[in-house]
Amino acid sequence: MPSEFDIIRQYFTLPVIGSVRTDVELGIGDDAAILSVPEGHHLVQSVDTLILGVHFPAETSAEDIAYKALAVNLSDMAAMGAEPAWFALAITLPDDNEKWLKAFSKSLSMLAKQYNVQLIGGDTTNGPLSISITINGFVQKNKALRRNSAQATDKIYVSGTIGDAALALAAWQEQCLLRDESVPYLQQRLNRPQARVELGLVLREYASSCIDISDGLIADLGHIIDSSDVGARITFDDIPLSNEFKLNLTDEALIIPLVLAGGDDYELCFTIPVAKQIAFEKIIKENNILVSCIGEIESQQGIRCIKADKEIELHESGYQHFTHS
Amino acid sequence: MPSEFDIIRQYFTLPVIGSVRTDVELGIGDDAAILSVPEGHHLVQSVDTLILGVHFPAETSAEDIAYKALAVNLSDMAAMGAEPAWFALAITLPDDNEKWLKAFSKSLSMLAKQYNVQLIGGDTTNGPLSISITINGFVQKNKALRRNSAQATDKIYVSGTIGDAALALAAWQEQCLLRDESVPYLQQRLNRPQARVELGLVLREYASSCIDISDGLIADLGHIIDSSDVGARITFDDIPLSNEFKLNLTDEALIIPLVLAGGDDYELCFTIPVAKQIAFEKIIKENNILVSCIGEIESQQGIRCIKADKEIELHESGYQHFTHS
Repeated sequence: MPSEFDIIRQYFTLPVIGSVRTDVELGIGDDAAILSVPEGHHLVQSVDTLILGVHFPAETSAEDIAYKALAVNLSDMAAMGAEPAWFALAITLPDDNEKWLKAFSKSLSMLAKQYNVQLIGGDTTNGPLSISITINGFVQKNKALRRNSAQATDKIYVSGTIGDAALALAAWQEQCLLRDESVPYLQQRLNRPQARVELGLVLREYASSCIDISDGLIADLGHIIDSSDVGARITFDDIPLSNEFKLNLTDEALIIPLVLAGGDDYELCFTIPVAKQIAFEKIIKENNILVSCIGEIESQQGIRCIKADKEIELHESGYQHFTHS
Repeated sequence: MPSEFDIIRQYFTLPVIGSVRTDVELGIGDDAAILSVPEGHHLVQSVDTLILGVHFPAETSAEDIAYKALAVNLSDMAAMGAEPAWFALAITLPDDNEKWLKAFSKSLSMLAKQYNVQLIGGDTTNGPLSISITINGFVQKNKALRRNSAQATDKIYVSGTIGDAALALAAWQEQCLLRDESVPYLQQRLNRPQARVELGLVLREYASSCIDISDGLIADLGHIIDSSDVGARITFDDIPLSNEFKLNLTDEALIIPLVLAGGDDYELCFTIPVAKQIAFEKIIKENNILVSCIGEIESQQGIRCIKADKEIELHESGYQHFTHS
């Protein structure tokens, strides 16, 4: 196995992973990075870890692992309405695999460039595969989106479509079969979630609360209502489903848990005060972003999910991460 | 095993781990933390991971693991001359062990309070034990200590004493025997390194370069001279050794590699321009900090280590982390 220094130098230092940003005073190569946060802004920081066998199966490609590890962190920035800027990577590798590292770092850099973020620090250790990324972004002071400020009568929205990642995971776990032509789209939704950063930036002017859907719609909406001390009513048939999802699943007994409790979509769930709803819908249409209104915040605690005038019984459990059976 | 939320809530959220800082606008509990970097300052950030079986043996106590995981990160702040402020913790745990978590979080919080830092984010995952900490600090713009600005004639210093941690590790690996009465001191030096943050803050006004000694004196001094494009001459007998070290080791064949290539001391190695040396020594004495001048930067590349007028042959290798044999 090459030494830690060799690995860092070869794959993570030169060329720079991601964009070369002018606010990076000093990147990788010293005891720490030196960074400039713009005046009048807060620093927004989050850390997320992906573990082999917990967050992705062993056969996941190096490219997909890199993509997802960064994307889920970018998604946290989106959920805060923050502009992502820099990230640090703590990677634990089981053995010397140059081919894997090359593919991993290339994929990481491509996604980082797409979002204009730069790798500014890292630690490489030897052990079972895990990737921990700390993402940094900024937001104008007091403009960050939080979970704790949803109010009764606010409208509840989600971005994109819900349940695709959970369906891909269910198929991978052999709980259901997919049509061959649907596999690429659904696997992409599981392995390469789209961080809704652009939407997050728009939401700063409109949303009263926001979260990304990593644990499942009910679980994550649950975090909003718990933090905000309110409740919610959603209409199941208003939850946006992709054509691929609908094509592959027709059994309601399967659809409902995947949509309500399936995680890993990394769409945003947010609330818009009624007074801002028209202006919000207008700007969303102008920017060609897909969002759907699925319900309303209520003062009565708890979540009520209505389907054809009946209330679906909700379970306490959120999303359970993939685990090898 | 309790869910991720339960763990976070129980052990890492309330009470706050470490100091309650006013520059933390929002701590743990949302998609990301929101933080204020003081105006006129740069953010300084670093990440370090400790892995069971690589960085510490399985029998290391939860308290020591927590201490070391944070201390090595604080040491990176010291090496930059930065004032540490906040840290994020990505912890992977093999199983439910409340006793372990309780001891770990308590020790983490005690050290965090001592250095006035606050835990502001975390991710808890299930898998083989590893702890990855991202530390954040700040430093006035353009005051950070770097590795790349040592110049010929600058004096080379180290803080504290060198080799203690390597001696404790060698004894643990049964490569040598320790006197019973020395064990507590030397184990403390291995498991609870002292981050030289106070010294780092002083050095901003005096030092031309700085690094912390994690990989071994020669390896880390090597990073300074490589980055600065200079060389170094050090006098072996000027390298400060603790009384416990000297009491336990008399065989030169053992002493030399432990002192030159042993890592894990987390002392600072730094360079002081001759013109600032008197003022530096004065302030160090006033602050009662232990530092020792061990040599000089030279324009000739490479490191020369002199002992009794003879040059010790240096090996390429730095410190090899502990690994189970």
